[in-house]
Amino acid sequence: MAASTFPLKDELDVVIPTIRNLDFLEMWRPFFQPYHLIIVQDGDPSRSIKVPDGFDYELYNRNDINKILGPKASCISFKDSACRCFGYMVSKKKYIFTIDDDCFVAKDPTGKDIDALKQHIKNLLNPSTPYFFNTLYDPFTDGADFVRGYPFSLREGVPTAVSHGLWLNIPDYDAPTQLVKPRERNTRYVDAVMTLPKGILFPMCGMNLAFDRSLIGPAMYFGLMGDGQPIGRYDDMWAGWCVKVICDHLGLGIKTGLPYIWHSKASNPFVNLKKEYKGIFWQEEMIPFFQDAILPKDCTTVQSCYKELAKQVKDKLGKIDPYFVKLADAMVTWIDAWDELNPPAKAANSK
Amino acid sequence: MAASTFPLKDELDVVIPTIRNLDFLEMWRPFFQPYHLIIVQDGDPSRSIKVPDGFDYELYNRNDINKILGPKASCISFKDSACRCFGYMVSKKKYIFTIDDDCFVAKDPTGKDIDALKQHIKNLLNPSTPYFFNTLYDPFTDGADFVRGYPFSLREGVPTAVSHGLWLNIPDYDAPTQLVKPRERNTRYVDAVMTLPKGILFPMCGMNLAFDRSLIGPAMYFGLMGDGQPIGRYDDMWAGWCVKVICDHLGLGIKTGLPYIWHSKASNPFVNLKKEYKGIFWQEEMIPFFQDAILPKDCTTVQSCYKELAKQVKDKLGKIDPYFVKLADAMVTWIDAWDELNPPAKAANSK
Repeated sequence: MAASTFPLKDELDVVIPTIRNLDFLEMWRPFFQPYHLIIVQDGDPSRSIKVPDGFDYELYNRNDINKILGPKASCISFKDSACRCFGYMVSKKKYIFTIDDDCFVAKDPTGKDIDALKQHIKNLLNPSTPYFFNTLYDPFTDGADFVRGYPFSLREGVPTAVSHGLWLNIPDYDAPTQLVKPRERNTRYVDAVMTLPKGILFPMCGMNLAFDRSLIGPAMYFGLMGDGQPIGRYDDMWAGWCVKVICDHLGLGIKTGLPYIWHSKASNPFVNLKKEYKGIFWQEEMIPFFQDAILPKDCTTVQSCYKELAKQVKDKLGKIDPYFVKLADAMVTWIDAWDELNPPAKAANSK
Repeated sequence: MAASTFPLKDELDVVIPTIRNLDFLEMWRPFFQPYHLIIVQDGDPSRSIKVPDGFDYELYNRNDINKILGPKASCISFKDSACRCFGYMVSKKKYIFTIDDDCFVAKDPTGKDIDALKQHIKNLLNPSTPYFFNTLYDPFTDGADFVRGYPFSLREGVPTAVSHGLWLNIPDYDAPTQLVKPRERNTRYVDAVMTLPKGILFPMCGMNLAFDRSLIGPAMYFGLMGDGQPIGRYDDMWAGWCVKVICDHLGLGIKTGLPYIWHSKASNPFVNLKKEYKGIFWQEEMIPFFQDAILPKDCTTVQSCYKELAKQVKDKLGKIDPYFVKLADAMVTWIDAWDELNPPAKAANSK
């Protein structure tokens, strides 16, 4: 089936947490310059970020976040790249692409630079097929289709809410795996996009991620990480598990695979272990929680689904650690802040 | 994680339905000659198949099947490649690889001949991970592992029962898609193997398929197709749906992806449409049936699962067409015949 076309530049914002490396923007210039950038500075607001000429951008630091959200700013992480989700909230565009500043342009097997944004948009503009697996991967890719035995009634698919891209070079491993395999590099270019089936969870990485804000935005909350929190590096994972449960409930799709970016450097595994270690055992209870989570039928909006999920988090995960009670409250605050910045009427217009 | 090693040749049989094309065996000689072949002739038993020198094989025609199974031979299709499942039943090996005679050796992107059997065995000897999706595909592939956020308790995986390989050149399309896209060719080499998640069905194609007979053999029944039956080209699909439901119930895994074979010629779409047309609307009821099928906890063997499924087929699909009543009976006959040829004690030893 033929893929839909590339959208206009005024429908997508690129959201980036603190840029420490100016090469980053130079490298992405040909691809990002047509778009509006939202940069969310994760640490000390007195330090300034120099954005090279030619980019259309807005920059938010902690003072800006506090000013815009008031007491509700408590739901936005400090000194952690999880703060990027503030950018999702202030954007007025239909699509978001978010990327880390250590992710560069990758090359395809022919040596050509990969336009990650273009592939993400292709993924988002074409339907997902979460109810039945297609063995030739995304049937909406050029040269592919649904194979024999694929029910015709399911070929229309469902709207795609999320496009999860991958990483060449440094794989996204947890600290224990980094420690055990310090030299492992991902060199395998897998030329595929696929829909994540309904009912299965996945580890959503925020390094190279795009989504349709109008479909799933309010669920893309990256939680409480960093300064003052007992855990780190679970911001994107948390968002991914919430998003998957809500997409399954609302009949929305998530794709994973292409496009690749080049992940340039591994973060420090010792620092990572410190951030992750509580998550490593908590996730053994978080995963069954999300696997078993059922949302009531009357939850028909992302906001109502998310608030219901917050309630279940408090009830069921609150027993593990008081952190989850705090997180559940922050999830509710996040939705309130989202609705304040994105009043329903306006949100309806943006669709 | 490192992949396990290649097994001894006396643990696998290659099962082939009628060979019409002698080039087929010549092309596969370097790969198949170390193995024992079981050829099951689908049509007229008076026509003979000439197998070139150097192959170790046994050949069964309809007369042999009737003689070995007696009245139970009614469960084996006639004049249809679905008869191949008789070969699964008479094999005494742990692993089966089955392939169609229009499938040739494919080349990988470097131009090297692909040893399909070697990759299938690698897939079968390494665990599957059906309970959580790994975004870098099979974590047991060289150079890959579980990514950040993958619960450690699920990393051991489950035994792999089935390895489903793909096809370059002619894709496995149904007749309507063949008619609409007569020139479409699959040129995309996707360098990946993945576990099919629990709870999702897939279209299992019998062209390039391997499985562990000791784990799932009795569920690999290719149904009633061909001569005297109202339907064709759903033999492998039917087997795949039954197998997936049973694997999910018993905690076994199914992998899809590599290896590729070269599918040389498209079958006639007009002939295919005639075979398929009832299946095209029946599958709209078959899929929900298999999606909703629940096996009771006391079904702990493949045989008991399969007989229970046969009962449910009769009860629920029997209403659609009397064919499903006949098929359900044949499913029971198949298990009885399997157990007769593979007495429990013997089966236990082969594990």
